[in-house]
Amino acid sequence: MTDKKGIKIATIGGGSSYTPELMEGFIKRYDELPIREIWLVDIKAGKEKLEIVGAMAKRMWDASPYDVEVHLTLDREEALKDADFVTTQFRVGLLDARVKDERIPAYYGMVGQETNGAGGMFKAFRTIPVILEIVEDMKRLCPDAWLINFTNPAGMVTEAIVRHGKWDKVIGLCNVPVGAMMMEPKMLDKTIDDLVYKFAGLNHFHWHRVSDNTGKDVTMDIIDKMYSEDSGIPANIFAMAFFREQLDAMRMIPCGYHRYYYREEEMLEHALEEYKTIGTRAQQVKQTEAELFELYKDPELDHKPEQLSKRGGAHYSDAACETIASIYANKGTHIVVSTKNNGAVPDLEPDCVVEVSAFVGAAGALPIAFGTLPPAEKGWLQVMKNMELVTIEAAITGDYGLALQAFTINPLVRSGETAKRILDELLIAHKEFLPNFSEAIAKVEAAGIEVQDEVVKEMLSK
Amino acid sequence: MTDKKGIKIATIGGGSSYTPELMEGFIKRYDELPIREIWLVDIKAGKEKLEIVGAMAKRMWDASPYDVEVHLTLDREEALKDADFVTTQFRVGLLDARVKDERIPAYYGMVGQETNGAGGMFKAFRTIPVILEIVEDMKRLCPDAWLINFTNPAGMVTEAIVRHGKWDKVIGLCNVPVGAMMMEPKMLDKTIDDLVYKFAGLNHFHWHRVSDNTGKDVTMDIIDKMYSEDSGIPANIFAMAFFREQLDAMRMIPCGYHRYYYREEEMLEHALEEYKTIGTRAQQVKQTEAELFELYKDPELDHKPEQLSKRGGAHYSDAACETIASIYANKGTHIVVSTKNNGAVPDLEPDCVVEVSAFVGAAGALPIAFGTLPPAEKGWLQVMKNMELVTIEAAITGDYGLALQAFTINPLVRSGETAKRILDELLIAHKEFLPNFSEAIAKVEAAGIEVQDEVVKEMLSK
Amino acid sequence: MTDKKGIKIATIGGGSSYTPELMEGFIKRYDELPIREIWLVDIKAGKEKLEIVGAMAKRMWDASPYDVEVHLTLDREEALKDADFVTTQFRVGLLDARVKDERIPAYYGMVGQETNGAGGMFKAFRTIPVILEIVEDMKRLCPDAWLINFTNPAGMVTEAIVRHGKWDKVIGLCNVPVGAMMMEPKMLDKTIDDLVYKFAGLNHFHWHRVSDNTGKDVTMDIIDKMYSEDSGIPANIFAMAFFREQLDAMRMIPCGYHRYYYREEEMLEHALEEYKTIGTRAQQVKQTEAELFELYKDPELDHKPEQLSKRGGAHYSDAACETIASIYANKGTHIVVSTKNNGAVPDLEPDCVVEVSAFVGAAGALPIAFGTLPPAEKGWLQVMKNMELVTIEAAITGDYGLALQAFTINPLVRSGETAKRILDELLIAHKEFLPNFSEAIAKVEAAGIEVQDEVVKEMLSK
Amino acid sequence: MTDKKGIKIATIGGGSSYTPELMEGFIKRYDELPIREIWLVDIKAGKEKLEIVGAMAKRMWDASPYDVEVHLTLDREEALKDADFVTTQFRVGLLDARVKDERIPAYYGMVGQETNGAGGMFKAFRTIPVILEIVEDMKRLCPDAWLINFTNPAGMVTEAIVRHGKWDKVIGLCNVPVGAMMMEPKMLDKTIDDLVYKFAGLNHFHWHRVSDNTGKDVTMDIIDKMYSEDSGIPANIFAMAFFREQLDAMRMIPCGYHRYYYREEEMLEHALEEYKTIGTRAQQVKQTEAELFELYKDPELDHKPEQLSKRGGAHYSDAACETIASIYANKGTHIVVSTKNNGAVPDLEPDCVVEVSAFVGAAGALPIAFGTLPPAEKGWLQVMKNMELVTIEAAITGDYGLALQAFTINPLVRSGETAKRILDELLIAHKEFLPNFSEAIAKVEAAGIEVQDEVVKEMLSK
Repeated sequence: MTDKKGIKIATIGGGSSYTPELMEGFIKRYDELPIREIWLVDIKAGKEKLEIVGAMAKRMWDASPYDVEVHLTLDREEALKDADFVTTQFRVGLLDARVKDERIPAYYGMVGQETNGAGGMFKAFRTIPVILEIVEDMKRLCPDAWLINFTNPAGMVTEAIVRHGKWDKVIGLCNVPVGAMMMEPKMLDKTIDDLVYKFAGLNHFHWHRVSDNTGKDVTMDIIDKMYSEDSGIPANIFAMAFFREQLDAMRMIPCGYHRYYYREEEMLEHALEEYKTIGTRAQQVKQTEAELFELYKDPELDHKPEQLSKRGGAHYSDAACETIASIYANKGTHIVVSTKNNGAVPDLEPDCVVEVSAFVGAAGALPIAFGTLPPAEKGWLQVMKNMELVTIEAAITGDYGLALQAFTINPLVRSGETAKRILDELLIAHKEFLPNFSEAIAKVEAAGIEVQDEVVKEMLSK
Repeated sequence: MTDKKGIKIATIGGGSSYTPELMEGFIKRYDELPIREIWLVDIKAGKEKLEIVGAMAKRMWDASPYDVEVHLTLDREEALKDADFVTTQFRVGLLDARVKDERIPAYYGMVGQETNGAGGMFKAFRTIPVILEIVEDMKRLCPDAWLINFTNPAGMVTEAIVRHGKWDKVIGLCNVPVGAMMMEPKMLDKTIDDLVYKFAGLNHFHWHRVSDNTGKDVTMDIIDKMYSEDSGIPANIFAMAFFREQLDAMRMIPCGYHRYYYREEEMLEHALEEYKTIGTRAQQVKQTEAELFELYKDPELDHKPEQLSKRGGAHYSDAACETIASIYANKGTHIVVSTKNNGAVPDLEPDCVVEVSAFVGAAGALPIAFGTLPPAEKGWLQVMKNMELVTIEAAITGDYGLALQAFTINPLVRSGETAKRILDELLIAHKEFLPNFSEAIAKVEAAGIEVQDEVVKEMLSK
Repeated sequence: MTDKKGIKIATIGGGSSYTPELMEGFIKRYDELPIREIWLVDIKAGKEKLEIVGAMAKRMWDASPYDVEVHLTLDREEALKDADFVTTQFRVGLLDARVKDERIPAYYGMVGQETNGAGGMFKAFRTIPVILEIVEDMKRLCPDAWLINFTNPAGMVTEAIVRHGKWDKVIGLCNVPVGAMMMEPKMLDKTIDDLVYKFAGLNHFHWHRVSDNTGKDVTMDIIDKMYSEDSGIPANIFAMAFFREQLDAMRMIPCGYHRYYYREEEMLEHALEEYKTIGTRAQQVKQTEAELFELYKDPELDHKPEQLSKRGGAHYSDAACETIASIYANKGTHIVVSTKNNGAVPDLEPDCVVEVSAFVGAAGALPIAFGTLPPAEKGWLQVMKNMELVTIEAAITGDYGLALQAFTINPLVRSGETAKRILDELLIAHKEFLPNFSEAIAKVEAAGIEVQDEVVKEMLSK
Repeated sequence: MTDKKGIKIATIGGGSSYTPELMEGFIKRYDELPIREIWLVDIKAGKEKLEIVGAMAKRMWDASPYDVEVHLTLDREEALKDADFVTTQFRVGLLDARVKDERIPAYYGMVGQETNGAGGMFKAFRTIPVILEIVEDMKRLCPDAWLINFTNPAGMVTEAIVRHGKWDKVIGLCNVPVGAMMMEPKMLDKTIDDLVYKFAGLNHFHWHRVSDNTGKDVTMDIIDKMYSEDSGIPANIFAMAFFREQLDAMRMIPCGYHRYYYREEEMLEHALEEYKTIGTRAQQVKQTEAELFELYKDPELDHKPEQLSKRGGAHYSDAACETIASIYANKGTHIVVSTKNNGAVPDLEPDCVVEVSAFVGAAGALPIAFGTLPPAEKGWLQVMKNMELVTIEAAITGDYGLALQAFTINPLVRSGETAKRILDELLIAHKEFLPNFSEAIAKVEAAGIEVQDEVVKEMLSK
């Protein structure tokens, strides 16, 4: 990096509605991260969005005091060539695929969700083969680059990159810890600098403890506040409180997504209610996205619009910018990342990927060793990590039995005929993006299975 | 043992309907296990049953060529004093408690079962404090005795004995592996001596692999047969087949109880169907038991009646007799036991209790090192063991938050308000047998919570 | 195996002086192990010995009531083809190589020994590439055969077979545990059947505990006897007693080879004394061997001569025969073997090779889970296993730095210039048998290093 | 801490010659660490030194712009009462004890050293009971204080504090990593801020890897420089280079003390040479110390004299001041500390103490997860940690057998009669400071064993 004239960033899935947040994050950090060129790359199906959001990105840089080239391309190789940092924010199958992930399980009364349950596993099935192709490209085109992934399910995707892609220069990011660290200091009338955070677990499945600047553990103080004020759950998670008695036993703060596991009944009820009325989250987001792209078309707009923060993934891109700046400027910032465990969470194997507090600098993420967890959290963590490993193996092999094993071990899937039916329908519905499963899908089709949800049915008929 | 005139056996819960099977097992092994005296001990509430089955036991020995004293007593200390082997087959709260364990979850649409789900956890809550008292008595009265436990949930009970009772001379037993080893050789037209069995896992949650006498792994051959013939599932488990594709991925044979986890939907449906019609398993068993005790009253009956084998726990007592004989005669028999792991299942801590193939002799159980399991089974095992550990800790501390944590992590409990409600109702319903939880129960009562199931309601009103 | 007309055994290194013991072992077990043909294979350099001992072997079978073909061959492929069991008792470089392993370190005042210290590491360097070739041959020629290895260093050789050869059907054997189990029961006026043995550790580096038939731990009783009577140390280990206080702290019985580690000073003194006077062990053994072969030439001799038991490796071959018979007849015999850990010794990784008590049957060795060791033994074990792993890696890569790392971590090598000199001289002295190290050896030669020990010098000048 | 008027520091062993460095460290950090009072406490035998160095300390503060009270006391309770930070730099038995630790092994041709080999183990035997007493005092008198230990052997002492003292608010310090991080950047023409350091291992037994500010691993570049320039080994370690081939295989930089293990022969030769000529290190240090105290007596001297840096322990105290300031001001500084592993070094148990890179702030040390080590380093680490654990257990129990086990497993002790003799003589020589070993010492005395080294003999005769 040092010998270059400036930094080259390549953003896979550059046509995403999040791109303006990413640009904003780079602009405000330009002094410590002097970018020369940004390459927004997307696939043909995303060309229109890429052009809209790309034009918007150019306007944002034009409105800044900095001279940065923004390139739009459908040629991934051109974008990756000699890149210093590659960020990934693509979505295989676009939001339509997410609609399927959500609606097919919901039709049968199960949780359909982007990163959890049957939907999360299918997002992994679709995404992992693509990310592994990108990694292979990077080995050829930019072997010294850092890969900053915020494509979901970020934990499994990062695990696949490290374990199967054999690529270590990767950091997986998520906005959930960012949200907690923005909200909780306020609850205590403190700033983030007054507090010491220790996160440990997996992506969308972690806990944290907090100490104040005198070394006192203030975790329970925050929990006390959570039960008296707004608990600050990210916008895309239904705001159901944890059982207080459970937190008293745990003495850690679970992440928002833990509601799917600690209040499964209510989260499911809520999801099914939306399914039956206003549509699932992806359907809602499609609407928000359409509105955002309408805004982005405005040739006068040259800054990130307020509406983007409602999109649900706020702070994702900012976390990415901060991570890149920390690596480039060797800042040693505390960031919660998905990275190789190395022992940080000793209840899991040292060679798997975990999401933990880390200090990020020129050498990448230095994860903080958290120590062993109490039995309940240890058990949860171990089952979730192994569910991830089976899911990844299924994604790569396309083995139907492994996919069924992954479904069975996933705590949000009730095993049995219905689960198997959901698996079969999802295979059919995502056929286009699951080449590894072609053999298994052929068998399912031969058995005459058809998707039942009307919305998905209509999508498939097009 | 060597210097004694003969062996003293003490059987806690001696009034059990299983006692005749135990006697039969001892009678047929008398040559290698020369018993001098058997003490059947029970609590006051079990006095009548003890007298009936005790008289029957005496008739059985009288009909044998052996001179063995059978003592009936309500004084546990007298029974334990200088015992060589203590067997435990008691049921805290009798079958009525099991009815509650089954019906209260079922009322709310969840699995109520003797050793799994909410019911299994409550059986642990009731049983563990009692077994720890027995262990304390043994330290005083028969410090060299072996404790052979077949009180359920046998895995958690054995874990509590080792971990909290600090008593190592214990072997936990179960009839499930016995059943598999009786049925499967027939499937292959072999005898058990032609096959090598390797079991690993936890009580009611294990897998096994089988080789034949040429060293060939015949696990998949047995699975093939399972899908063509009777699968030989123990009478108290609904005969739902596993998904073949899952077994193909697993390449091991799960135990019958795995149906609760691999076919949760169907097992639940079946249980709820029974709940609504013929009554839960305990209610059925109560009927069987009543019939058995009627038979036992027959002063002519001096051998184990055929009907006992329908009771569901067949071979339990025989496994106990074989275990005792193997220890006494240093036989080195292969028996599947709950014992300290010591590394046999390396995916779990060396100091926890597992259920594994072991060679049993004078030094107790020598567990066979099974090696690491594939990710899916590893994840299941780790979550189940940690669920057990949290359950045991809750049983001992009476901590409501830990009980809730145990419920939440248990794969058969859907977390949320309903689960919490089931927890609350079970606490109230079992109040008499949960002294450790008295504080928690007082709070639940103060909140005005009442049991809703009509059958249990009526029991409580008595 | 079952469908064959009889069993085919191939013995690599068939010209060994131990072969008559092997034949005797097979003859006495013929009823349970009906062998059809035995192939004794050796290399050209061993042709004469093969012919002598082969003729002797034939006479032994002729004198038996059994009709077994004994084939002598220099063609390994012919011998391996369709073999059921392959036994390995070869010695790369013959006894001359052992003389070098012993004398070069001793010249510089360090332990030179067959399986420990610098000599043991060089025996591994020479043997591992050869055994891996044999394994490759077996994959082609007899993929279902069992490999019974008693070529030293048996632990490292077995580890290499499993880890690098990816061959699981292997059992490593050693006569040291056999010796202990022959001697100790006598000390207690018991038979082996009255005792329960639990061994754990590594080849030539294990401990054991013993219980009697009442379950009582009699380990300390045996230790008491060891200090009052003959301690029964194998003939090739100098009879130096352990410090009693150390055993009192340990409460286990170390193997004879532990003297090299627990009484390093005295063992070294003794070895150096022999080096300076009667010659090292290999030099003594050469004499014994010569005498044995003279005996074997006697056309009247048709049974194993008494003198063989003085050779030092007595019971090795018998252990091999018992192991083969246990596998073939699915006997489930307790044998101490080198096999994949699988958790039996939880202080080491589950996938490494350990030497432990196992029950041997049709499925091979089922290792007994021993549980964690106390800190002192745990530390020793971990350093020795890692020394083995580094040694094996050096053997395969021929990397000089790794060889130096292996020397440095080996507790019997005092690190520094002298150790490096010993490494260099051994490389040169064994050049012929170390093709993997050719590059490193060229550098050492270029540096003008020459062997100093007169005996080895003379060997090399030939 | 926050609510106090200022910080109270208590320094156990306040009469140490290092105290002026400590004062200097506090003075230069006063702005971020506003100390109110410093209590220098020592035992009666150290009263004179305490008064000299205490007066010097007062002069240093008087010469500063800050108003800080310095108290001198022999009353440890008074010093500890309400302390915020306790630093420990005491030496049980003073330098005379170190002379014995060095000379008795050297008399018999073995390494005598302050923290390694027989001497290091005896320093642990003397120090651990005292530090555990201090911890008990702290529980009563300053339960919220941080204990900053730099009493050697710092690793074992910290381990004892955490494991047996059950005191988690402790950080162990050492100047060795400080030295490396001062020297190596210069070798690369960089500053420390340009580099990312990752240390892992144990006190006086660690390795490190270094990356530069572009993320490039520059470890081998530093090693290249080490072989072309001054290697910057701390003054109290003989400057013997590592074998380059070994470092090439290792690809990490060992600490200076590794010379005792990687070049044992030469380090021993050097030590024995000193023993026979100028006296052991302690004897040399006694001279330096005497000179230092002469300087300290000068009523004009009010700043740390240059000569102190020759003492060997330079930067120890500065590291302590930086650690305290980092905790107080929540700085998050990278410091290499002895702290609870928590998984940072996954090759060791999560609950033991390791020496690793950590970020130090209000919540104490957050250790960086280093990941697994290659086999050679893993083996070394495991044997050393277990040696530490056995040594600590011996220190606490006074068990002779365990002490012998510790000696035997220690790589710098050649086991055998001589080692046992050294153990016996050291027990006698340190009798006064080894109350836990009184029974063992009585036996040794009864056996008529006497110290042979003339210098120690004379000491004992006084």
